[in-house]
Amino acid sequence: MNNLFEIDAWKIIERGFDPSKQKQAESIFSIGNGSFGQRANFEEKYSGDSLQGSYVGGVYYPDKTRVGWWKNGYPEYFAKVLNSCNWIGINIEIDGEQLDVHHQEVLSFQRELDMKSGTLSRRMKVRFKNGKELEVESLRFCSMHDEEIAAIRYIVTPLNFSGNVKFTPYLDGNVMNHDSNYDEFFWEEDSHKVDVKKGYVCSKTKKTNFSVSTAMRFSFWKNDELLEIHPNHVSKAFFVENNFEHYVEKGNRYTLKKYVSIVSTISHSEFSVIPRSINNVRQAYMNGFDYLLNNHIAAWEEIWSKADIEISGDVAAQQGIRFNIFQLYQTYTGKNEKLNIGPKGFTGEKYGGATYWDTEAYCLPFYLKTANPKVARQLLIYRYNQLDKAIENAEKLGFKNGAALYPMVTMNGEECHNEWEITFEEIHRNGAIAFAVYNYVRHTGDHSYLEKYGRPVLIAIAKFWTQRFNWSEAKNAYVMLGVTGPNEYENNVNNNWYTNYIARWCVQYALEVEKEVSPKVGALLTNDEIKSWNHLVENVYFPVLEGTRVFLQQDNFMDKEQLTASDIPEKERPINQHWSWDRILRSIFIKQADVLQGIYLFEDHFDLKTIQDNFDFYEPKTVHESSLSPCIHSILAAKIGRLDKAYELYLRTSRLDLDDYNHEADEGLHITSMAGTWMAIVEGMAGIRVLSDSVKINPVIPKNWKQYRFQILLRNQPLEIRVSQNECEIINKGSQDLELILFDENIPVKAGNFYIKTTTKTATI
Amino acid sequence: MNNLFEIDAWKIIERGFDPSKQKQAESIFSIGNGSFGQRANFEEKYSGDSLQGSYVGGVYYPDKTRVGWWKNGYPEYFAKVLNSCNWIGINIEIDGEQLDVHHQEVLSFQRELDMKSGTLSRRMKVRFKNGKELEVESLRFCSMHDEEIAAIRYIVTPLNFSGNVKFTPYLDGNVMNHDSNYDEFFWEEDSHKVDVKKGYVCSKTKKTNFSVSTAMRFSFWKNDELLEIHPNHVSKAFFVENNFEHYVEKGNRYTLKKYVSIVSTISHSEFSVIPRSINNVRQAYMNGFDYLLNNHIAAWEEIWSKADIEISGDVAAQQGIRFNIFQLYQTYTGKNEKLNIGPKGFTGEKYGGATYWDTEAYCLPFYLKTANPKVARQLLIYRYNQLDKAIENAEKLGFKNGAALYPMVTMNGEECHNEWEITFEEIHRNGAIAFAVYNYVRHTGDHSYLEKYGRPVLIAIAKFWTQRFNWSEAKNAYVMLGVTGPNEYENNVNNNWYTNYIARWCVQYALEVEKEVSPKVGALLTNDEIKSWNHLVENVYFPVLEGTRVFLQQDNFMDKEQLTASDIPEKERPINQHWSWDRILRSIFIKQADVLQGIYLFEDHFDLKTIQDNFDFYEPKTVHESSLSPCIHSILAAKIGRLDKAYELYLRTSRLDLDDYNHEADEGLHITSMAGTWMAIVEGMAGIRVLSDSVKINPVIPKNWKQYRFQILLRNQPLEIRVSQNECEIINKGSQDLELILFDENIPVKAGNFYIKTTTKTATI
Repeated sequence: MNNLFEIDAWKIIERGFDPSKQKQAESIFSIGNGSFGQRANFEEKYSGDSLQGSYVGGVYYPDKTRVGWWKNGYPEYFAKVLNSCNWIGINIEIDGEQLDVHHQEVLSFQRELDMKSGTLSRRMKVRFKNGKELEVESLRFCSMHDEEIAAIRYIVTPLNFSGNVKFTPYLDGNVMNHDSNYDEFFWEEDSHKVDVKKGYVCSKTKKTNFSVSTAMRFSFWKNDELLEIHPNHVSKAFFVENNFEHYVEKGNRYTLKKYVSIVSTISHSEFSVIPRSINNVRQAYMNGFDYLLNNHIAAWEEIWSKADIEISGDVAAQQGIRFNIFQLYQTYTGKNEKLNIGPKGFTGEKYGGATYWDTEAYCLPFYLKTANPKVARQLLIYRYNQLDKAIENAEKLGFKNGAALYPMVTMNGEECHNEWEITFEEIHRNGAIAFAVYNYVRHTGDHSYLEKYGRPVLIAIAKFWTQRFNWSEAKNAYVMLGVTGPNEYENNVNNNWYTNYIARWCVQYALEVEKEVSPKVGALLTNDEIKSWNHLVENVYFPVLEGTRVFLQQDNFMDKEQLTASDIPEKERPINQHWSWDRILRSIFIKQADVLQGIYLFEDHFDLKTIQDNFDFYEPKTVHESSLSPCIHSILAAKIGRLDKAYELYLRTSRLDLDDYNHEADEGLHITSMAGTWMAIVEGMAGIRVLSDSVKINPVIPKNWKQYRFQILLRNQPLEIRVSQNECEIINKGSQDLELILFDENIPVKAGNFYIKTTTKTATI
Repeated sequence: MNNLFEIDAWKIIERGFDPSKQKQAESIFSIGNGSFGQRANFEEKYSGDSLQGSYVGGVYYPDKTRVGWWKNGYPEYFAKVLNSCNWIGINIEIDGEQLDVHHQEVLSFQRELDMKSGTLSRRMKVRFKNGKELEVESLRFCSMHDEEIAAIRYIVTPLNFSGNVKFTPYLDGNVMNHDSNYDEFFWEEDSHKVDVKKGYVCSKTKKTNFSVSTAMRFSFWKNDELLEIHPNHVSKAFFVENNFEHYVEKGNRYTLKKYVSIVSTISHSEFSVIPRSINNVRQAYMNGFDYLLNNHIAAWEEIWSKADIEISGDVAAQQGIRFNIFQLYQTYTGKNEKLNIGPKGFTGEKYGGATYWDTEAYCLPFYLKTANPKVARQLLIYRYNQLDKAIENAEKLGFKNGAALYPMVTMNGEECHNEWEITFEEIHRNGAIAFAVYNYVRHTGDHSYLEKYGRPVLIAIAKFWTQRFNWSEAKNAYVMLGVTGPNEYENNVNNNWYTNYIARWCVQYALEVEKEVSPKVGALLTNDEIKSWNHLVENVYFPVLEGTRVFLQQDNFMDKEQLTASDIPEKERPINQHWSWDRILRSIFIKQADVLQGIYLFEDHFDLKTIQDNFDFYEPKTVHESSLSPCIHSILAAKIGRLDKAYELYLRTSRLDLDDYNHEADEGLHITSMAGTWMAIVEGMAGIRVLSDSVKINPVIPKNWKQYRFQILLRNQPLEIRVSQNECEIINKGSQDLELILFDENIPVKAGNFYIKTTTKTATI
């Protein structure tokens, strides 16, 4: 796999302008602050192929569902993340010709995403058709310190001329979603105003009535001198601009500083979004660009101090992991309980919705170990708040008695997805939500969560499973028919091992929690229910490959033609872009961890040989065409001592978007799976397992790494872990003593102390 | 089940106007002539709920596919049957108030479809808001004698006033398909013209460039006196009208005779459609209404003389079978090789496309036995002409070497359907097309068809199957994974018994035909191919219920909850309108004959006990929610002597639309399944089987029928069969002697002679 952009420990660097990479770059260089985000579109006009995208967290539109043939139970609409007001716009014009590198000669070009400071910058030299050459330097950020603020510094230097240049900062709310099902425009205008100093556009979503006010204000400088200017102002529906012509002198730097505020009714009332946005840009203008930038950088410093993973000796791996951590924190900061982690974050539109099982299965472990436990709790509460909708959803499908099926994709708790094989059948998502409760409790020890919030969710999920299994006379066991497992290259299969396994576990865990909690606050289950649930737990059918330890992905899996991924010609990869759907379905090839996903989640239920045998059976058949896949395989590979494989899959997961493995980065990044990359180091390389009663650490290190180091929260204590080729150091930075198990040996690590083991063991089996 | 309309041997009669039945009535009272057809909309304005529909055979538009998530191999478009120029329009206005029974008092109302004469008539009395009462009598037909002509006689009688009435005959091509995926208008205008005598609208389809010219001309009469009138003429895009006011005298009859011609580029050049349509209406006008009507009735007489089935003693059954035969001949006459039999004929838009497997599996046997063999041959040639497209289609899905997969739905040979579980998986359709060749040859003895036309189709289909099976090490047999059988309430199953069975048969039959034909005109298969195909034929896996003669619908069928259709509460029927798709899929309930479809087709492969056991296993699980289902079960029920069941299912199939069993007649009729109804009598009750070397007749008769009688073509000889409670008469009306097997006894029936057996046996097992 070739690298798309330059390798650097803290930066993504693009040198030279290549229009064919523009949409990939727009995704990869995206910036955001958890509240809103912006693709790396140019500030000035660009008429080449581009996906202009600016997204505001939590604001959505119920786009009428598009299906081939309607089926009962389909949702009426798909909640779409909205492409909203373009706030970065600054047009530059010389002698009637607009700056637009699609039509002009680019003499030099460099775009940089600095992950340490959270800034996107660009420097380029352009020759206009009339021969005039201009240097442009821009830098922008979405403030991590103030979630309603963004700012741009846009510097123009005439290189070979003096003369008039026209500057036009603007806001443009005439924006359509590229993925609109029926080419509908999702916004209506609330109002807009502009004067010589400031302007705003306030748009309102149709149907859902979210208001978003975007305001701007700017200043203009010659070198370090603030200039007084008298701009014109222009406005029309959804649009405001200022513009002014200025005589620029060759070799001097002319800087436009644009302050922007985006305020929505996600956090404020309909009446306050406009005045608040106006007030914000006034304040930002007063504070000045550098002040805002410094605060922003300080906020990132705080995040990096807790969440960074440092890898020495392998810059590609280093860049990969930081890119993943960076994008995750840009997407979700845990400040707002109405938000969740969309699969594309603020980097694109594909998939819509905000919340998938990715949140619980992938992102939660990341936030559990890198952020205040409140953040993880916020994610759980989000689902608790949507329990009623999950019960309604199950009722639509014919389930009763308070059974809950959480949606595959949602924005407000209602199902949005519109393929029956996913919507109705990919029900293992329900298991991930229950597992997240379990995971939160075992990480934090916060059993009080179960009483009010955890138990109702767990019981409702377990009710779904107990109705979804049916008794098979033929097998003399409970079977689950017609499901889609995590491996979406199979649809409507029977007895998907993963789904059966997590479903049974959900019922077991719900029974345990009921037993723990009911003496305190009363029972939710009758004795009959408990009895029949226990009968189910004891009699679930699991497909196995006879005479082996291998769990079969589903019934009749062995009827498939027995091939491995290496049998697929390179030019037919990824198969989902080359093969018809039926061919994919009946092939043995696995999109993403399925049986192995279950073994990953419930690793402590299986002995090492079982894990190894299943890994060896499934890994060669897995094409990893889901971003959620390689990280899980990497973790298991590390576990069973396949360090080369673990490293190969780590690189693949960490650089999936950076190197665009699956040829789809132009549409946006795979945000949620980035948490899996982080897990591939913390759980894979460092071998950290947080169990209910113990924390285990079994670090390994790839041959070509000198050292890696990171900090995590364990039992709410910050712990730094450093692993090199010959030692492993654990520093307890917290105030409480910890007892850990390192290579099967109990070690006490006292508060403020460290522990060093001088030989790093390479796991063997 | 209540009858929607009155029971009559030759007519469908609606008495009294019930707006809630209007859309059902519009479908059921549809008329057509194989070239075009028209729903039973009112001539005058009707602003109530209605589906205005006029359809021209073979004219289609490639409507951009609508899917939730795109999958490789999906067709880009769905060929839609086009709603085209409204030619029936005649508006009536008194004192500025339009006749529109949605807003007026209907004093009496009767609508009649006379199947014998192929005419739709209506008589009604209406009171206008100003108290004026009008009687309207209309009669119209689409000429079976001249496929480009239709005519309307529209009589107005003022009942309680004399005064001015405005008459406005018009043509309106501003017509949209109700099922347009993106609310697109599919037509563009070619031209329109109108003068005091005549007018036309010529529209052209976007993209496909079909032109359709619709012309009109009219005359106006007071009682029997032709009046000279001087109408105004009005036109705009896609629209022409004449209008005139006439002083009408109380109690007199004023008749507007409207002659219409519809000419399309299906049969004529782009340059000739307009002059031809104009010339046609001029000629029709000269010939006069009665002349045209008489020719039309004579054409129907000719059809009925060959295709009628007469049932004495059961008017509901009689009406049912005639309705089915009538609709079939209205839809397809076999005159044009470019046409086929759309599932809704000319009665609605749902499903789109023109050709489904219904044509081969259901309609072909009907035309083989009731029409000149050229008609059936035409249907086969239609597929032969589309072989290249079927090969392309298979290539898109990854098949090689000239393998062909015929489309699920098509207009021009390209696939139109857009659900993966149907498009890519419901591949048994390929088998029906091969079976049709076999069926044609065994009926007609025309082996010469195989050389040029039959063999290439059969070999290409067999190539598909040999690639579609794969070898299962686990089963030590060839298996077929990921298919949808005829029972569409299962998707993506393994080893659907029906599909495996017909697929293996296709390979066998292709090998036979190759053996028969290759000595004459050269081989199409290599020896290696023949060897490996034979290996496949001998080693196909079939799921069975161990210890019984029951063939299992698919792998793991017995894991389902074992229920019968009687367990479903009445209010949840049909389940496809009440249950979510996943619930339907994992239930045991069968939409339509599946294993039994195979047993029906290959009945001579199985002993009676096997047929009975499979019938008893599957019939109670079958909900018959496809129109294609009850007829097959009825035939098998008759075969195994379950006469009550056969009769019950016969009534259900024959009156499916008349009584609207499945609550969907408003969208159009189930045209193709109507051939199944016919089969339910000829093959079911009369027990006729045409085998390659013999013709068997095993008649039974329901208790409540006095007698039934029909004519069929056997070995190209017209044969009349009459079955009463105590005798069976066979009359050979042809010129060649026949040898038949009646109740297992060889009987010679000489040309022009008859044979009577005095006891009708009731089949027992």
